[in-house]
Amino acid sequence: MIWCVPDNGIRRLVLFAYAERQMNRFMGVKKYKVVFKPDDVAVDVEDGDNLLELARKAGVALTASCGGDGVCGTCKVLIEKGETESLPGMQLDPGEVAMGLRLACQCLVRGDLVVIVPETSRMATGGGRRALATAEELMAVTGWTHAPPISKVYLELVPPTLEDNSSDLTRLERELAKHNIDDYRVELGFLRKLPHVVREGGWKVTITVLREPSGSRLTRIEPGDTRNRLFGLAFDIGTTGVRGELLDLNEGKVLSRGVEYNGQRIYGDDVISRIAYSGKPDGMAKLQQAVVATMNRIIAEMTQRAQVPAGDLSYLTVAANTTMIQLFLGIDPKYLRLAPYVPSAGVLPMFPVRALGIDVPEHVYGYTIPSVASYVGGDIVSGLVGTGIYQRQETVLYIDIGTNGETVVGNADWMVSASCSAGPAFEGGGISCGMLATEGAIEGFHYDPKIKQPTLTTIGGAKPRGICGAGLIDIVSGLLTAGIINQKGKFQSESDPRVRSGVEGLEYLLTPAGETDINKDIVITEIDIENLIRAKAAMYAGYQTLLKSVGLTFQDLDKVIIAGTFGSHLDIEEAITIGLMPDIDRNKFFFIGNGSLLGARLSSFSSELIEAGRRVARMVTNIELSENGDFMSHYIASMFLPHTDSSLFPEASRRLMELSKGGIH
Amino acid sequence: MIWCVPDNGIRRLVLFAYAERQMNRFMGVKKYKVVFKPDDVAVDVEDGDNLLELARKAGVALTASCGGDGVCGTCKVLIEKGETESLPGMQLDPGEVAMGLRLACQCLVRGDLVVIVPETSRMATGGGRRALATAEELMAVTGWTHAPPISKVYLELVPPTLEDNSSDLTRLERELAKHNIDDYRVELGFLRKLPHVVREGGWKVTITVLREPSGSRLTRIEPGDTRNRLFGLAFDIGTTGVRGELLDLNEGKVLSRGVEYNGQRIYGDDVISRIAYSGKPDGMAKLQQAVVATMNRIIAEMTQRAQVPAGDLSYLTVAANTTMIQLFLGIDPKYLRLAPYVPSAGVLPMFPVRALGIDVPEHVYGYTIPSVASYVGGDIVSGLVGTGIYQRQETVLYIDIGTNGETVVGNADWMVSASCSAGPAFEGGGISCGMLATEGAIEGFHYDPKIKQPTLTTIGGAKPRGICGAGLIDIVSGLLTAGIINQKGKFQSESDPRVRSGVEGLEYLLTPAGETDINKDIVITEIDIENLIRAKAAMYAGYQTLLKSVGLTFQDLDKVIIAGTFGSHLDIEEAITIGLMPDIDRNKFFFIGNGSLLGARLSSFSSELIEAGRRVARMVTNIELSENGDFMSHYIASMFLPHTDSSLFPEASRRLMELSKGGIH
Repeated sequence: MIWCVPDNGIRRLVLFAYAERQMNRFMGVKKYKVVFKPDDVAVDVEDGDNLLELARKAGVALTASCGGDGVCGTCKVLIEKGETESLPGMQLDPGEVAMGLRLACQCLVRGDLVVIVPETSRMATGGGRRALATAEELMAVTGWTHAPPISKVYLELVPPTLEDNSSDLTRLERELAKHNIDDYRVELGFLRKLPHVVREGGWKVTITVLREPSGSRLTRIEPGDTRNRLFGLAFDIGTTGVRGELLDLNEGKVLSRGVEYNGQRIYGDDVISRIAYSGKPDGMAKLQQAVVATMNRIIAEMTQRAQVPAGDLSYLTVAANTTMIQLFLGIDPKYLRLAPYVPSAGVLPMFPVRALGIDVPEHVYGYTIPSVASYVGGDIVSGLVGTGIYQRQETVLYIDIGTNGETVVGNADWMVSASCSAGPAFEGGGISCGMLATEGAIEGFHYDPKIKQPTLTTIGGAKPRGICGAGLIDIVSGLLTAGIINQKGKFQSESDPRVRSGVEGLEYLLTPAGETDINKDIVITEIDIENLIRAKAAMYAGYQTLLKSVGLTFQDLDKVIIAGTFGSHLDIEEAITIGLMPDIDRNKFFFIGNGSLLGARLSSFSSELIEAGRRVARMVTNIELSENGDFMSHYIASMFLPHTDSSLFPEASRRLMELSKGGIH
Repeated sequence: MIWCVPDNGIRRLVLFAYAERQMNRFMGVKKYKVVFKPDDVAVDVEDGDNLLELARKAGVALTASCGGDGVCGTCKVLIEKGETESLPGMQLDPGEVAMGLRLACQCLVRGDLVVIVPETSRMATGGGRRALATAEELMAVTGWTHAPPISKVYLELVPPTLEDNSSDLTRLERELAKHNIDDYRVELGFLRKLPHVVREGGWKVTITVLREPSGSRLTRIEPGDTRNRLFGLAFDIGTTGVRGELLDLNEGKVLSRGVEYNGQRIYGDDVISRIAYSGKPDGMAKLQQAVVATMNRIIAEMTQRAQVPAGDLSYLTVAANTTMIQLFLGIDPKYLRLAPYVPSAGVLPMFPVRALGIDVPEHVYGYTIPSVASYVGGDIVSGLVGTGIYQRQETVLYIDIGTNGETVVGNADWMVSASCSAGPAFEGGGISCGMLATEGAIEGFHYDPKIKQPTLTTIGGAKPRGICGAGLIDIVSGLLTAGIINQKGKFQSESDPRVRSGVEGLEYLLTPAGETDINKDIVITEIDIENLIRAKAAMYAGYQTLLKSVGLTFQDLDKVIIAGTFGSHLDIEEAITIGLMPDIDRNKFFFIGNGSLLGARLSSFSSELIEAGRRVARMVTNIELSENGDFMSHYIASMFLPHTDSSLFPEASRRLMELSKGGIH
């Protein structure tokens, strides 16, 4: 890759920026810090520095096919946090801009930055391990306008006189009418604040307006003009992990992120055991309070980190599976697990969030992305919306890998869904040294047969603390290709110096206690591997059965979109090797990370996507795998690495065969 | 009055009913009790007895100009409680039927009854004291259809199957759509009950639907068909007294009534002192809780008496002055008493009532009749709606006599209002032996100059307990015409053996302790009389100023409608004698009792009247008397019995002169 700045208009702008920066330096310019992720490389920079230049200096391998002219669009980066200024070069799609995407070559630093370099913008670096881990923007919904369901309007009321002493609300109404807000709802809480706030603001106020599907609602009144402060929360409530984002709704960007294990975990690992627990005395209340407490901790951390007072929050979007939604809202989930598996409601109303125990002011309203069925929830609909599958003509298989494995196949014209219980293994749950995909989680495993030693990579490059879902897949695939475990997932006795007898049977030592951050050996046990095999078998059998039910094969698919909370990447090749993913053209795979959270975020930015969610939820037809004879036989046949039917995995089987031939045993 | 049954079709029906009754008697017929009010005469009757016949037997003087043929419509009675059957004779207006009015001659007893005989249906009995106390139906709004803002719809849902396991709410929606309920709101509380209730009812449920101005809301779900149970509450929250009615919304009738002093009284007698108290620490909360506690006691008593479980209540309508509404809803009333006297809101939204502390289930929604201005509240708008003034072409003066004296003049095309503070005297407040117009209250006073002794009548004929507003007017007028007090309201010393020196100065003994129900002398003091004079002067000056401001005189009025909570009657002649009412043609006066409660009740029976309330509130123009120079001079001139300007009271002055000429001194 040759780096050059051709002599054209764009270059002149870059040069001008360079000159400006030099002048600023002379004048005593501001200094900032830019962190590139997932590399975690930090550089000290100055106000006005060009982001592409900085990436080069920092050794971050950013593609720029046109050499930084702002014409090819290949150097897209995601500004996770901080202020930038864009040069007037090539324009990104407004949806992309709203998501925080910028062209690095056109982007000047105007504050401390956290920059994510998506895999699609990364130069091939030889290893190519992450080449298929595709950044979310490649598969995001398009064509929507930035118009959050909640907005602010600034009004200057006419002060009352003895001649016109009509009510405060009437005076407000007159001004609202000028903004075409004629028919609205209002709560007593708003009316109780009204007389004080209009006078405090000298009859100048800002009204927060919630656009509900059935009309408008005035949710908040503030003195003066506060339009520049409009913040929201997006949450994905997973059965195992809860993930949140603090959003600037005006700017359409993420200010901070947070993740924690779902506090409900102590009451059971999967939705079935949670539903069972909800039937015990106080069970519902305990489960509801547990998830709310988790969310409150995440909110406290995110607002503190982004320095946004919780009082400035206005809106909450939640995407989650149907059981999580019903437990969050206090709706008994009992009938979700009894045939014929009927949820209470698919499309739910907007509701005041504080009444549920969420630590936000009473003016905050929440919305849950609608669900399709008992086991195809709002998390899936959120992903279908966020990735725009409902807009596409090509046939897509959408797979959400989580504690519940949910799958949808279809396109703009039709969609069919199915779900199965995979268990929490993909999120590090039920694994002896498992953990969420946060700092210190082992996410990569490379085995060197010559020295019989593995090379581990962790999230953030920190000392290992445990194994996340992506790491688990890498490790099992690595142990299999190295011949340390067989295709049933059992250790080949004495095959490797690191295999040993542990409390729960045979195990493989990944990191000795002294090299960890937790002062404990990190191992993977045979039981862990068995759990992963069960989980991947359920997933694979799930989409196998689904495709068969609509008369398709894997070869008929144009794209496979994989959603899941694996951290920054999922290695598709390894996922195929263990039989989690079908053995088809690798270029058809797109990994989008947490699809549920993606859809929740984008739905917070545009009412159009809320409407899309309602359309999608109505459009999907669900089939029940639990009542499907095919599913169980597919499942049993999948309890092998990669599969008992090797013809389904020609490439993976050939690779395993070759490795075993030239193997180390 | 001759009682006969002419030989025509109607008579044959009556005879047929008679024959049927004879047969029932033979077969072992059901026996009931019928109570006629306000006479309080009870008779034992049999199933199928004719109400007009029974009234005759019981000595209740009911008019029946046509002799019971069902053609003249003069024997109208109000069925306060119990089952009747109407013969197919003359039809009353549906609005009248909804109010519980029946033609006695066409009405057969089908259960225990409480029957109110309105003054308009009462035969002249010589005394004629009550001839002008006109029953509410004479001045009630017309042309509305019985369609309460809350209604029930019975649905049979299709049970779910594995092939169609869409959500409970979706199944409900499909059936609601068949009743044209497509767009509705729903609370989480409803959704939490949904899964249990649909199954408990075997997929047969009754939904309660609230028709809000901006759409429908599902407020309650019950198993099975409960359409026959739909109950509501109507309340008038007065500054001094709170009055409630328990309504059968299906039948459009009152099941029971209740009244209590407003618990806020301990914090001040009038709205100004209440507003002042609301500014103290916890003042708002104490005032809010006080009125809610009063309402809860009335609700408990009414529901118990009518044997309607509080859980079966669905709706609440409240009419009250602006201060009472704001305090009830917890909206700071501070700015109501500061110029330019701006209320927080005129038209308020429907709101869940339980959140305010009202002892009803969470599904109960409430509505407050909209107000015009700080001192022309929903109580007045309610009376304007209930009496249909906004429908009439004639010019009407509407006077609400209460702690706040509010007055409106106008017709279908225009209305102007004003208000003044009269104080609580008209409700027995601030009077040494004052009480609300309930059982045992002295409501009538007749002085016999020959024996120098008064004859007292009490409500319900009970032993005296105190003096109500109507009694106070009667007593002062009687003492004046008897020459016991002079036109300034001062006792003529030693004029009468009952005048004596009391703790607070001169007083007149009405009932010695031994003859009372409270074991205490009941007296009227000079201070009581002064309070009444101040109160009546404020009222009179109020409508004098109002009329002048629109260029009218009392002679221009077609009707004067007097609303007030004086119990069963107000004696117009006595009210003119003391100068409370203008001295004009007595036939122009109509006394309708509690107009605020009348409008609240009728608005509970028809959404059309809710809409009318909103129109009326917008239509009325208010003038501020506190800023009006005329008002104060009118007020001072009115501090005399009847008035310093006797030309304003020609008839009353002539009568006083005559009595004084042929007088007893």
